[in-house]
Order: sequence, then C-alpha cells, then structure tokens
Amino acid sequence: MRVVMNKTLKTLTFTLMLSGIGVCFAQNKIVVYQSDFGLKDGAVSEMKGVAIGVSPDLKLYDLTHEIPAYNIWEASYRLFQTVSYWPKGTVFVSVVDPSVGTARKSVVLKTQTGQFIVTPDNGTLTLVAETYGIAGLREIDEKVNRRPTSGNSFTFHGRDVYSYTAARLAAGVIPFEQVGPELPKQVVSIPYQKSVFEGGKLKGTIDIHDVQYGNIWTDIDQSLVKKLAPKYGEVLHLKIFNQGLLVHESDAPYSETFGSVPQGKPLVYLNSLMQLSFALNMGSFADTYKIGSGSEWSVEVSKTVQ
Amino acid sequence: MRVVMNKTLKTLTFTLMLSGIGVCFAQNKIVVYQSDFGLKDGAVSEMKGVAIGVSPDLKLYDLTHEIPAYNIWEASYRLFQTVSYWPKGTVFVSVVDPSVGTARKSVVLKTQTGQFIVTPDNGTLTLVAETYGIAGLREIDEKVNRRPTSGNSFTFHGRDVYSYTAARLAAGVIPFEQVGPELPKQVVSIPYQKSVFEGGKLKGTIDIHDVQYGNIWTDIDQSLVKKLAPKYGEVLHLKIFNQGLLVHESDAPYSETFGSVPQGKPLVYLNSLMQLSFALNMGSFADTYKIGSGSEWSVEVSKTVQ
Amino acid sequence: MRVVMNKTLKTLTFTLMLSGIGVCFAQNKIVVYQSDFGLKDGAVSEMKGVAIGVSPDLKLYDLTHEIPAYNIWEASYRLFQTVSYWPKGTVFVSVVDPSVGTARKSVVLKTQTGQFIVTPDNGTLTLVAETYGIAGLREIDEKVNRRPTSGNSFTFHGRDVYSYTAARLAAGVIPFEQVGPELPKQVVSIPYQKSVFEGGKLKGTIDIHDVQYGNIWTDIDQSLVKKLAPKYGEVLHLKIFNQGLLVHESDAPYSETFGSVPQGKPLVYLNSLMQLSFALNMGSFADTYKIGSGSEWSVEVSKTVQ
Repeated sequence: MRVVMNKTLKTLTFTLMLSGIGVCFAQNKIVVYQSDFGLKDGAVSEMKGVAIGVSPDLKLYDLTHEIPAYNIWEASYRLFQTVSYWPKGTVFVSVVDPSVGTARKSVVLKTQTGQFIVTPDNGTLTLVAETYGIAGLREIDEKVNRRPTSGNSFTFHGRDVYSYTAARLAAGVIPFEQVGPELPKQVVSIPYQKSVFEGGKLKGTIDIHDVQYGNIWTDIDQSLVKKLAPKYGEVLHLKIFNQGLLVHESDAPYSETFGSVPQGKPLVYLNSLMQLSFALNMGSFADTYKIGSGSEWSVEVSKTVQ
Repeated sequence: MRVVMNKTLKTLTFTLMLSGIGVCFAQNKIVVYQSDFGLKDGAVSEMKGVAIGVSPDLKLYDLTHEIPAYNIWEASYRLFQTVSYWPKGTVFVSVVDPSVGTARKSVVLKTQTGQFIVTPDNGTLTLVAETYGIAGLREIDEKVNRRPTSGNSFTFHGRDVYSYTAARLAAGVIPFEQVGPELPKQVVSIPYQKSVFEGGKLKGTIDIHDVQYGNIWTDIDQSLVKKLAPKYGEVLHLKIFNQGLLVHESDAPYSETFGSVPQGKPLVYLNSLMQLSFALNMGSFADTYKIGSGSEWSVEVSKTVQ
Repeated sequence: MRVVMNKTLKTLTFTLMLSGIGVCFAQNKIVVYQSDFGLKDGAVSEMKGVAIGVSPDLKLYDLTHEIPAYNIWEASYRLFQTVSYWPKGTVFVSVVDPSVGTARKSVVLKTQTGQFIVTPDNGTLTLVAETYGIAGLREIDEKVNRRPTSGNSFTFHGRDVYSYTAARLAAGVIPFEQVGPELPKQVVSIPYQKSVFEGGKLKGTIDIHDVQYGNIWTDIDQSLVKKLAPKYGEVLHLKIFNQGLLVHESDAPYSETFGSVPQGKPLVYLNSLMQLSFALNMGSFADTYKIGSGSEWSVEVSKTVQ
C-alpha cells in the first residue's frame, strides 16, 4: 500500500510541478514592443491581441511607438538604450520596416546578456549586436511561426509574424531553437562614425536627442571622457558640425548635475547611459541652437579653444 | 486507512484545482480600453484604477486614446479593425461619448466571435455589429453595475459605469447575463455608403487613413477586388471625390508590396485588413493630395480611364 | 506509516501554500508611473525594465508621461486626481524632478487611504498630502534601495532609485519600514489660493484644464457650491482673472450634463471630481477665450452681476 500511496503522491506532486512550471513559475513571459506606428490607430493593439491569443498569461509592455517613420537608426538606438535594463528572457519586438514584403530577413537575435529581439534584419540590430553581442541568430521559419489564417496578408508582418513568434517564444510554446534555421552571427549594420580621443580632443557623433528636453546625447562614453579627464566645474570647449561644417561653438562647464549651473545656462555632463551630453538647464539646447542628430552630426570637445 | 488517505488526497487535490481555476487558470481577464481622452491627464488611469479595484488580477491594455474628440465613426472603425485579433472573452471598453448624461443607452454587446464591447450605444457599435454579428446585447443595470459611492457624479460614466462593469465581467464577478436586461439585437448605426462593383468600376468610401503614414484605406475588400481582378503590376485609374466632387485623379500600379514601386511613387494595394488602399512608397498620399476620410469621401477604381 | 505519509502530505501542502502565497496570492503588485518624460524615447521603458527585474510578477501601469516639462504643480494635481481610484497597496512613482541631483529628498509617502507615492519631495506631494493625509513618510535609503551597479550615474534617479524602490515595495521584497528612516509628517508644499465662499461669491483657482476638450476645472468643490446653492438651469455670472486682472466675463447656466445646452454654448457644471468647471458643449472654452491654468488664474462665480 505504501507503494500505491507514494505513486499517487508522486503523480500529484509531478502534476502540480508541471502546472506550476507551465502556468505560474515559468519564464518571465514579458514581451516589449517598439515601432514607428504611433498610438493613434489599431496597429499596436492588433499585435498585442495576437500575442494574448497565444497565451493570456503574457505581460505586454511598450518601449516606444513614436520612432520617426522609417528611422531604422533610431530604432537601433532605442533598443541599445533599454535592452539591458530588462531581465534575461525578455522578448523585444521591433517593427520599423520600410522594406516590408521585400527580401530582408525576419530574424530573432539572442543577445549574450540573454534578451531576445524579434525584428526585420534591416539595420535595427546594429547597436544591440555591437554592444551586447550575438549569442544566436535565427531566421523565422514562417511555415511554422506565422499566425494561422494570415497567409493572404503581405503587409503586416509585425502582427502576423513578429508578434506571433515573440509571444510563442516568451510563453515557452517554442524554445529559441524552433524559431527557424540558424544564421551566421552577423547582422545588417548601419555604418557610423565611432567616437575617439585624439590630439587632445574627444570626437564623436550626436547619436540622438533627449527629445522631451532638447538635450544632445553623443556616443562618447565615460571611458573616453576619462582620457580628457575634465574636473567638475572645468569649462570645456564644444564644436558641433553638420556634414563636416561647423554650425555651433561654445563653452560650458563639465557638471555633475543640471542644478549646478544657473537656469538657461549650458552644461556638459554624463547622461544616464554614461555618455557625454550637452544641455541647457531647464531649456532646450537642440531648439535653441538648431542642432539635429544622426550620423551626419558630429562633435569635438576639448579643454582649450583649438 | 487507505480510504482516509485518499480522502485527504482528494480534498487536497480538489482544493488545489479550485485555487488553480480561480487564480491561475480562469478567464483571460483582459480588458482593452479605447477613448477620445488622450493620454495627458488622469482620466484613463482613473478608469484602470477602478478596474484593478475590482480585481488586481486583471490585465489592462489600450486600443487607443487618440480617437479625435467626439468622432464616433472612428471609434467604430478602430473596434472593427482590432476586435477579432483578441481572443474570445476579451472585454473592450470604448468611451467616445459626446452625449454623456443624456438618454443614450449604456450597453454591453457580445459578438458572435465571443468578444464583449462595453460602450454607450451611440453609433460606436455600427461596424462591429455588422461585421462580427450580435450574439447578445444587454443594457447596463446601473443599480448593480455602477461603482459604489459614485452616485453623485454625472459626467464620467467611462470610469463609474463602463470600466467598472467591464472589470466585473472580465474578472468573472458577473456573467454576461447579470450585466442587465436583454435588448433586441439592434444597435444605433451610422449610415454610410457601402462598397460595390458596377459598370466595371469599384466604388467605395475612404473609411480612414493609416494616420502615421498617410495611406488611404477604403471599405472595398478583397472579395470585391477579385471582381475587378487586377494583376500585380497592372496600372489602375483612381478617382477621389469629396461630397461628390472630383478632387483627385491619377494612375498607380496594383502592387503586392510597397517596395515594388520607387520611393515617392503611388501604389494600389490590399492593406493588412485586406481592403483596397492607396499609398505613396515612403511618402504621405493623404498630405500630398489633401485627402480626408469619412462618409463624405468616396472613390472609384477602374482598369481604364472612364 | 500513517505518520510518514501525513508528514509527506503536510510538507507538500505547506510547500504549495508557500508557493501560492509567494507567487499567485500575494499583494496587488501594481506600480503606476507618472513623469514628464514623454513616450518618444526609452526612459519609461528603462524604469519598467528595472521594476520587472525586481519581480516579473509586477503589473506596471501609467498615469501619464505627458506632464509639461518641470511642471511640479501639474504632477501634484494628477496624483491628487487619480490616487484614490486605485486600491490600497498600489505604489505610484512620480518623476518630475527639475532639481535631480541636488539636495531635495527622495521619499515614499504612505497616504491615510493606503496608497504609496515614490517621488522627489519637491512639491509633488502638495495636494496628495493635503487631501488624503500622511500615514507615514520615509526618506529612501540609497545604500539599500538603489539599483545595484548604478552608482556612477547621477542623473536618472527615476530609474535607479524610484522605480527600483517602488518595485521592491510593490513586490513585497521590503515592507514600508525598510524604505529608510522615518521623517516628520510634513512635505514640501507649493503655496496656492484656496477656494472660499464670501460676499455671495464663490472664489477659487483654475487648477487645471481638461486638456483634451478645453474645459476649465477650478478648485471649488461641491460642498462650497452648496453654499451658493444654484439650481440646474439657473444662469450664473463668471469672472476670470489672470494675476488679478479681469480677462473674461460671461453668463452660463448651471447644468447637470453637457447635452443640456446647445452645441457651442457655455455651461457651468461639476466635473467628475465634483469640482466647479466651465465648458463649451462640444467646443473648447480654454482656446476660445484664451484661458490658462495654475495659481495665477483665479475665478469668481455669483448668481447676479456684482
């Protein structure tokens, strides 16, 4: 009888473990969405509905849907900016896809830090691949990983392929290996000028603006800044170029906080990603001086006018 | 003793099943919100807080809160566009309610595809009722389904009645039958010109724009398009009318993907809802040619100039 | 053997109870975010990723991220407007922080109604503290409640301190007592003119606009309105002042609903928070008469012209 009872107990325990693993204890079940769709129509909601149809236990969040239309560079940047703050196992969907329906591959990249990105391989992965490394790259097999009954629609891969595949991966319906065939660990990359310290100057690119405030963010990170070695309060000299032409030149103190300069005055600081940035305290540096962002905008920062 | 043990085991198993069913395995517990409130104030958050107060296990998503103020047609269209992508049991709340506080009924519609819509019956249900069918329609009984202590406020039914009722329905606090008294299966409908194929021409209405890109979406679906039977690459002739007056006329190829025409050039295609649409590849058709949307905007598409 | 079996059963039951309590049955695990970051970049997503890293079971919602940049008054108002609609135990994060990195304290306030607010103590708590009372106030101890490995970044407390602390509190990793040292029950408050009834007139401040519609919301609540005692349909006389100068004067009926006046006509009504408000039915009172909001905008309402 002891055997009988133990078997019952074991079966019960095993069943409970299974249901626990499957329903309450499994993967983090998080999907994070990014696109250039905006929030005024139903496109984002269609993508999320398809995911919830795969598993109602998924928890769906947004990175942003306000990527400027077709701006693959900014899509790449926003992923670079946020991916590492989410735990291992998080699945990102990024749909900025001007070439939807053409030959670009649909892929899932697994970073060496353990997050997944589901996206067209059109440059969107440029900065994530460089920064966090490629643990694996697979092409989505649309024979398996495509929403059933969606075969006739050629224009909304975000919903029918990317969100559907991301949901299956996040919910544990498929492991990474069943996304589709493995690809060489190489993604389509957008060329851009990388930051350097030479001749006593920091040189780099204006990656992006802190859009809500008009701050200027460069790709010059703290390790390069250490080579220039400015002290807090020390005045630095800035030059900003558009396609190689000087469009702005000024002086500003290297500062630990915005509050350390008067209202309306400029400062140079490390932003929350520890990259060299320019701002006006409680004003917009970008609007005031008409500064843009992207690969055609470069900067030089030095201790003395050169 | 075997009996005793088995009884204990059965009780344990039953308890676990119950708690499983109640907490982890129950309804999908999804509520999806739509409104014309925008996202700048606290209104959407008030609605969601009331829902979470009914059950913290609910998962709350958004369709859009950027419906143009008072635009019931667009509210109806966005529901039509997205409802079918969410699984059975999903509860939608739509609050575009210019006549709040007057005699329009507050209702819950159950579609024949199994989703619920909680809304004022003011035309918002026009396209959902036509497309997905009415499995049931009930008037919300505010004596039961109204947030306690909200009796003095006459102006925010979205929070006090619609979100509260939706949450109770999604969480399984009430079944559909306890929403309130059954109504005849007929909703308030906005009149509009339906699409037809006659005299070798497709005729229809510009339902809406794909706002982020400026594409033009008509109500002419793929089954009508098959009657015209264009081949990919075949040039079609478009006419667009505002209140019956011709305002735009041009030629564009029928295309499978945006990438099959050069940048800036027009195409005719089936959108992700399989309806005939007009676009400029990487441009805005609507802005370029100043085309609006709604029942006063009609189109004709034919194979030759007529 | 009975003992053995019972012990096994008890262990199993206890384990299941524990896992149930920990994973499926615990606190409401809700965090609600507010900021002036907008939704165009990755900042909100970084904050949420950090929270999900604390516990993937958290459910993260938004109040708004469209607080005008640096507008602490409006941050305070939006919390006042929404906090009480969310259940006890809900944790709010509010990051409108023009003085980030300076001496303002980082705190968690527990309201007497049982919600928590994690924020810089810079005036953001003005209206919540007044309205819902302070059950407890603690300064965040950044030695404990700061995201590990974030020590070098001085500019994004919203992510590294506020969201991290809020997540730990909401997930039950720490109780309120372990936020940090207790403070006196007093917050930094923004001075403002409170509403009164005197000389037959209601006087008050235009707290805010109902931005999507252009309605004017004052701080004159229903208990004061009862002292004037208008009847529905009775015409009231309005005066609006900017910094003490009369800028608008008109008559409008006290109305139960928007629909009780013709389209485009003004009405005086109690908004969804039961505060005296002015609107044009299906129009914008604020745009039409160029009325702002904040402490420099005051109103007078009386039954006869005075």
